[in-house]
Amino acid sequence: MNEHWSGLEQSMIGQGIQTLLITDPKHVYYLTGFLSNPHERFLGVVFQPGGKPVLVVPALDEEAARQATNGMEIITHLDTDNPYLLLNQRLQGSVGTLGLEKENLTVARYEQLKEALGFVQSYDVGPWLRDLRVRKTAAEVEKMSHAVHLIEQVLEAALKQVKEGVSENELVAEVEYQIRKLGADGPSFDSMVLIGEKTALPHGVPGDRKLRRGDLLMFDIGVYAAGYASDITRTFAFGELTEEQVRIYETVLAANEAAIAAIRPGVTFASIDKAARDVIEAAGYGPYFNHRLGHGLGIDVHEFPSVHGQNEYLLGEGNVFTVEPGIYVPGVGGVRIEDDCLVTDSGVKVLTSFPKQLTYL
Amino acid sequence: MNEHWSGLEQSMIGQGIQTLLITDPKHVYYLTGFLSNPHERFLGVVFQPGGKPVLVVPALDEEAARQATNGMEIITHLDTDNPYLLLNQRLQGSVGTLGLEKENLTVARYEQLKEALGFVQSYDVGPWLRDLRVRKTAAEVEKMSHAVHLIEQVLEAALKQVKEGVSENELVAEVEYQIRKLGADGPSFDSMVLIGEKTALPHGVPGDRKLRRGDLLMFDIGVYAAGYASDITRTFAFGELTEEQVRIYETVLAANEAAIAAIRPGVTFASIDKAARDVIEAAGYGPYFNHRLGHGLGIDVHEFPSVHGQNEYLLGEGNVFTVEPGIYVPGVGGVRIEDDCLVTDSGVKVLTSFPKQLTYL
Repeated sequence: MNEHWSGLEQSMIGQGIQTLLITDPKHVYYLTGFLSNPHERFLGVVFQPGGKPVLVVPALDEEAARQATNGMEIITHLDTDNPYLLLNQRLQGSVGTLGLEKENLTVARYEQLKEALGFVQSYDVGPWLRDLRVRKTAAEVEKMSHAVHLIEQVLEAALKQVKEGVSENELVAEVEYQIRKLGADGPSFDSMVLIGEKTALPHGVPGDRKLRRGDLLMFDIGVYAAGYASDITRTFAFGELTEEQVRIYETVLAANEAAIAAIRPGVTFASIDKAARDVIEAAGYGPYFNHRLGHGLGIDVHEFPSVHGQNEYLLGEGNVFTVEPGIYVPGVGGVRIEDDCLVTDSGVKVLTSFPKQLTYL
Repeated sequence: MNEHWSGLEQSMIGQGIQTLLITDPKHVYYLTGFLSNPHERFLGVVFQPGGKPVLVVPALDEEAARQATNGMEIITHLDTDNPYLLLNQRLQGSVGTLGLEKENLTVARYEQLKEALGFVQSYDVGPWLRDLRVRKTAAEVEKMSHAVHLIEQVLEAALKQVKEGVSENELVAEVEYQIRKLGADGPSFDSMVLIGEKTALPHGVPGDRKLRRGDLLMFDIGVYAAGYASDITRTFAFGELTEEQVRIYETVLAANEAAIAAIRPGVTFASIDKAARDVIEAAGYGPYFNHRLGHGLGIDVHEFPSVHGQNEYLLGEGNVFTVEPGIYVPGVGGVRIEDDCLVTDSGVKVLTSFPKQLTYL
């Protein structure tokens, strides 16, 4: 049983929940170490206070589940079995109030579970998991650091393919080639490479735009590795930039650094957003920073909490989130610089280490 | 309103369902032409017999939805809106029995819908959509042919990178590079390239195995393009093969061709599976063909119906499915040859056209 279970057990007792059933595959991984996409088959982990968690997996995953979970009790089901009835046998009918993830479970599955387990009440435990995940353990931070290391290697390799005439799509293809070659699980979101005027679109889609002298070039890329995400943005100059483009770059960099300098336990997420936004507003670009500063990062590439100006949640040791200020001026171009940051006991550790000073390729 | 709606309207009247709410993004595409991944935001299309469908989309998708749907009524919602309440306003409270997709809807969303719409009863319409999708229209077949054309170009390009010492992972990376470069939406499943003894694993995972003279080389790859999937497998010889490997290849090819020759409206899927299996059994390899013959193909890469020996469902014009017999002998190697087949009014049209005779690279 990993360290996350004790928090769940306390919440269950406090809430009067006799049985917990976790079905989000990412949460099964988070709680058991078994990472799997069960597709349409049933995967879940069930737990009752005072007992031990029991993993329910498709039979074809049994061996992988045993290797990943180190002695955990495992129930397997064939495609011809009803996994909910097997679960009910194991629980010997004493289900009581059932805690489950209502944002993960389909109505069809809920109805099957209700028929098999006959629970009277159900309770949404989604928020419990969300709150647990906010504080990363040392083991999680290690996995995230590895995911960061991989994406920085990818970026380094992709930069070698930058030359006049290369297109956004070709650079995206190179990024995804490197992601696979380096052995990551895959990209953590649609890899984004934007060139020239397209950098002014915070959610631009890579296309056939080809690189020319004087263009800004933006990479926003990430990977999943061992189930954890990384996410980095760097913006480069290809040839000379205009004075305004340079001023935008230096402003975004200063905003990124101001936000990072403000990170420590006990301050609000709003204050981190403000630290960056103040720098950008002072430079006169306030209206062109039209998105939040960042987002939580972990087993999802976008997870709780959101880093924006209304978030009064306090930073705590073990939080990991992105800091990604940007300025997007139509007709001039856009710059975003994004780092992945860990809150330590006294301040911050920046997991990303790719150079940030303006680089002319 | 596209041609799929009339079938749904009849089913609704027959079943006494006053309101239909479709929420699977693939089915929204199927019914409206608007292809989108709404992530956590609400996307749905609502319909009442005698009326016209109404699309409910996140505000940021409004423009794309208008372009794709050609005059359909659209309701948009901001992140601060409750989309279910907007929907209820539009329906003016007259929901009655609600048809919805219970395998798509989460319990959380169902509870929110129930609160906003106050419907009394709900009914699972998932099977209706499944049945509609089985018969492809001419427009759908055209999209699928394009997806097939793209993956065959990918395969041709990837073969140019085949040389002694290249690894499975490097060839997978090349495949995915080409998929992106050719402008497909993306791979339709994890691209699979297996070499040598690993071809004997029907669900092997590409790794560092490097190509050597005398190896079998298997590609099982596909793309989504305009929302429709293709799926093809070809197996090649790199250098000389053993006599047994050649016999296996020729047996699989004969099985593939026998199954295709048996395709016509009115026969059972079981009979198609049997046509291939008989050839393999006659050659003494029966136990080494340990999976079904194929699967339906369309807006999902694996969809209804399954092509196996117990499926007594009858083939009808417009069905599209894969024919992919294989023989996997541990220590000797595996061969699979997969085509995408369309049932016509009198027989079959094979959408895939990549050569199938044994090719020595």
